[in-house]
Parts: sequence; C-alpha cells; structure tokens
Amino acid sequence: MDSPLRVVQYGLGPIGQETARTVLEKEQIGSMSLVGVVDIDPDKAGRDVAAVIGGDVASTGVTVSDDADAVLADTNPDVVVHTTTSFLDEVADQMIQCARAGAHVVSSTEELSFPYDRHPELSERLDRVAREEDVVIVGTGVNPGYAMDTMPLTATGVCTDVRGVHVERVVDAGERRQPLQDKVGAGLSTEAFEEKKAGGTFGHIGLRESLLLVADELGWSLDEVEEELQPVHADAPVDTGFRQVEAGEVAGIHHAAAGLIDGERPLTLDLKMYVGADASYDAVEVDGDPPIDLRFRGGIFGDTATVGMLVNTVPIAAGARPGLQTMADLPVPRAFASQRSTNSAR
Amino acid sequence: MDSPLRVVQYGLGPIGQETARTVLEKEQIGSMSLVGVVDIDPDKAGRDVAAVIGGDVASTGVTVSDDADAVLADTNPDVVVHTTTSFLDEVADQMIQCARAGAHVVSSTEELSFPYDRHPELSERLDRVAREEDVVIVGTGVNPGYAMDTMPLTATGVCTDVRGVHVERVVDAGERRQPLQDKVGAGLSTEAFEEKKAGGTFGHIGLRESLLLVADELGWSLDEVEEELQPVHADAPVDTGFRQVEAGEVAGIHHAAAGLIDGERPLTLDLKMYVGADASYDAVEVDGDPPIDLRFRGGIFGDTATVGMLVNTVPIAAGARPGLQTMADLPVPRAFASQRSTNSAR
Repeated sequence: MDSPLRVVQYGLGPIGQETARTVLEKEQIGSMSLVGVVDIDPDKAGRDVAAVIGGDVASTGVTVSDDADAVLADTNPDVVVHTTTSFLDEVADQMIQCARAGAHVVSSTEELSFPYDRHPELSERLDRVAREEDVVIVGTGVNPGYAMDTMPLTATGVCTDVRGVHVERVVDAGERRQPLQDKVGAGLSTEAFEEKKAGGTFGHIGLRESLLLVADELGWSLDEVEEELQPVHADAPVDTGFRQVEAGEVAGIHHAAAGLIDGERPLTLDLKMYVGADASYDAVEVDGDPPIDLRFRGGIFGDTATVGMLVNTVPIAAGARPGLQTMADLPVPRAFASQRSTNSAR
Repeated sequence: MDSPLRVVQYGLGPIGQETARTVLEKEQIGSMSLVGVVDIDPDKAGRDVAAVIGGDVASTGVTVSDDADAVLADTNPDVVVHTTTSFLDEVADQMIQCARAGAHVVSSTEELSFPYDRHPELSERLDRVAREEDVVIVGTGVNPGYAMDTMPLTATGVCTDVRGVHVERVVDAGERRQPLQDKVGAGLSTEAFEEKKAGGTFGHIGLRESLLLVADELGWSLDEVEEELQPVHADAPVDTGFRQVEAGEVAGIHHAAAGLIDGERPLTLDLKMYVGADASYDAVEVDGDPPIDLRFRGGIFGDTATVGMLVNTVPIAAGARPGLQTMADLPVPRAFASQRSTNSAR
C-alpha cells in the first residue's frame, strides 16, 4: 500500500470547502491526507478547517492559514488542489509558488483547462516551471474538464473518422448551489443581464477552452471561433429556495460556442444553465464512423462532479509526466478511493 | 508536423483488413504510413495488401509477408497493430518479437486488455520486455477496451464516491459481420449451443478482463467473480442476410459477469449479442455521488469501433510510458487524424 498522498487545499470557497471535505473522507480510507489549507479570508484564517467547512466534520488539527509559503514549506505536500478564481493571470503566481515547492497543482481555474490560446506566454512559463520542478500542473472540473471536452473526446475514441462533434449541456440551475444561480444571472432583468454581459466576465468561463481543447486533440485547425451569450427567460415563476424568479425575468444563460472550418460548424458546444429547466442532461453527438449518440440522463450534477474531478485528478496528476498538461494528456479519469476501495493503489 | 507513424499490420483477418484499410486512409492525410503487413495465410502472403483488402483500395506496393521477422527488420515500424487471436498464450511470442524489434504493440487480443489475472507470469514477461525495449504493449478494442471498461471507468471520473457500477451492452448481431454472428452461435440448436459452451472457449472473450480492469482501477478487491453464459433464443424467424434463424433456435448469447464484495454485487457487466434484437445500446449506471446514467443510443457499432480503437491507440501508445499498459494507464482515447485534420500532431 502506497503512503497517503499529502494534499494542501488552496482556497476555501464553496468548491474548496467541498473538496477539503472529500479529501477528509478519503483520509478515512487512508488514501489521502489533508496536510494544510490556505485561504486569505480573515474570517477563515486561523480556524480549524473543520469549523470552516461545517457540517459533521470532526476537528482536524489543520488550521487554515493565509500564508501559502509557510504552509507549503511546513507541510511538503504532494499535490495542491487549487480553487481560487477562474482567471489564469490572477493566479498563475500561486500555481508557480506551489510548483516551486515541489507540489503538483490540480486547479479549478477554468482558463487553465486549455490555456495556450488566451495565455500563450503564461502557458509556456507554467510548463517550464513544472518541468523544472518535476511536477504536473493541470486544470480540471466538470465543465471545463469533463462534460464538454474530455467526454466528447472520449466519445470520438472509437471512430475511424469524425466529421462533427456536437455537445449539449442543460443544467437546471435551480438544483444547484446559490453561487451558480448568481453566476447565471437568475432573477435579473433583461437590462441588468445585458449590462453585466457588456461588462465582460459574465457567462460561463471555460466554454472557449473546452472547444479549443477538443479541436486541438482532433487535429482540427479552426478558422474562427464564434461565441454567443443570451439570456434564458422564465416562462413562469420559479422558486429556487434561494430566490423567486418571476415570469419574464432572466432565468439563466444560453452560452454557445462553435468552431468554424471552411464555412462549416463541425464543432459546437451548447450550454444552457437556468432555473426552471425541465430536466438536466448532457448529450454528445459525433458525426463519425461509427456515429455516436451519447446521453447522460439527468445530466452530470456539477456541484459534486467538479469536486469529484478535482479529487480524482490528484492521484492521476501525481503519476503523470511532468509539465503543464490538459485532461487529454492524462490517463482517463476514474473515481479514486471510493468507500469500497481496499487500497490506495494506482 | 511530425513525420507519419510507421505502422505494420500483423494479421489480416476481417479486423486486420479493416485496420489496414483505415491506416491507408490516414496515410492520405499524412499521419500514418502502412509500411508492412504480416499474415501466414498462403492465400494472402505474397499479394499486395490492397488486393487482399479488396474494395476500392489502390495498389500500395506493400506485399503481405508470412515472415514477421523479415518485415520487422526491413520496415523498422514505430507501431505494430496486432490482430491475430483472442488468447494471450498463443500470441505473446509474436508481441515479444515486435517489441524486440523496437515497435510498440497495439493488439486486439482480448486477454491482453487486462492480462494480470489469467496470465500473471506472461504479463510480467511482456512488461519486462516492453520496458527493456522502451515500447508500449497494450490490448484494446471496443469490447474489451472501451464499452465495458474504459467508458464505465470514465463515467466514474466525476464521482466523489462510488458504490456500484453496472454496465449493459446489447448488440443486434444481425447488423454485424458474419464472424460475429458465428461467434454468438446464431442459428444453433440449444443442444449444439450447450455442447460448444461445454467446450470452453465459447462466449465473449474479454468480459472477465473488463470486469477486473474496472475493479482494479477503482481499487476494489473482489471476493469472487461470477460468470454466466446463456443462449438467447429467437422469438420469431430472423433473416440476417447471412443466415436464417428460426423461432426457438439460438439467436445469440447472454453473457454476464459480476464482481462480489461482502456478498454484494457492486460491479456487473451484462452483455447480450444476438440477431433480432430490437435495438442496440450501451448503458452505464454508476451508483455514486453524483449518480451517473449514461446511454449510447443505438449502441457503439463494434465492427467499426474496434478498428477505431486500434488505430486511435497507435499514436497514444507511441507517446506513452514504456511497459505493458492497460487502457486505463493511457491518455483518454480520441479520434486520430480525421479527414478534417490539418496536422498529425499529438
């Protein structure tokens, strides 16, 4: 039996808290150990991580610290699970700090899932540092990271030829945590939606990255990427438990991206996240030989799935080739150390 | 642009012929090159591979040879696609021969997909040789290789915990090539079916391997593996184009495998392949957090998908860590060099 992977949780927002909780569950199985937690929030720093996470988590003896350097030096982690922001230029230094401490980095930073297009120089720098330090840096999550990139790519794995890949994800945001409902603009007026959209960072971060990852791995050189963000309006009043959305108000987003080649759109990603959706689902259609018509009935529940991808990628990253990697570079994702597991082997 | 991967096709049965045809299609895109073909059949050896494959394939200048050593020495392949038999002990020497020539081996040999249980010593030997020669040896295909192992594993990739994995594959054998219809016993009497079953090597080869691969990667130590093979009988006459199956005759097989832990069956694979099935489909149900209910509507068409997996695994194997590997050790499968591709990059 391998010794447990030493994990530092960097960032204790909603996703980070759930990730820490899951790492603590894996700790019971002996496959991981939460050795440190970093968060700069003064309401969190200085407290036992269990107290911040809440619920029925027993006191851990691990204190949240706002000093990442100290935590990295003191705990010598194998892997840092990094969950701070979506935007790479804001957090690349944090990743480099972790890599310099000799830790692999598994991050929910959406732009990291395929960073080469938006951040070519930063990508080069991250790759160089990762190789120098013999660690992996990788971005993952449910979306980007799985539903609209890794899974569609895997769907093409049986094809002798592929002419088109079309991915649809419909998320009933009413079933999701409050930050997601905020993120999709549930309850906004159309005017407020358009204002936020004009502001720039609204919409689903990572759709473009998913599209480019799929295109890149298929060897498709896109002439152009089209992106469109529209509001979905509520047909009828919706009570999400967190808020009441009236008929005619914004229920969420419809965010679509397409890759163009020779005037055609062989690659399309279509994402709807809104409160009041009839049903969540994920669908991948491959126009190929053979054709593939794949559907996740009930969808892939993102709050949990994001945490699953982060935690399950920890042992995979720890065993992979050093460098800046994408999910397509790593071995197939699979659940790590479930309650039925009798060992921590990989 | 990388130089094309030099491929030798070893075995020109129905799957080998389709694989060679696909490699020749990729050759048009500049991403692979068929440099040699091995088959011991005197009806094939000495002929241009194009003549053996038939159809509209233009003459290639590559002659089928029954002398594998000569082909390997003369052509210096990067990868051998090996499609001879299902049983590892019959063909391990062929794989070692290829590895010793410095070629990666991608094989359809079902028992190679997870060889450690049935053939522990042979596995060790293959792994040792592969590492010595700095090559990858891997078994793949649609089943085993994808539908009932790689895909269910990938389905668990988003889960923070997994309590059960249940996989179903229903194949309308009437849509498949004649060897598969023979393989599943279509048209046999029940007595003839039972006789063949008692003979040993009947049924789907690889189901046990898929089960063990999934269990191994989830870290589940199975107390026992149950396997059951039953005939499916035709309700009504079926004309497959190759044969007429009367009502009451055997239409195909129902082959099930289950992994037991503490008296429960958390892992089940259920395979039906028979002529006259209403519809083909593949389904994966994960009892986990989140739950996953995944379905390939219309199924995964095996004749093409097996070839797709073999050919798409060629560049992946060529870039992977040396040794005997499983599909769970390699990066996620994805289509290689489709007609839309503008490069052969990986």
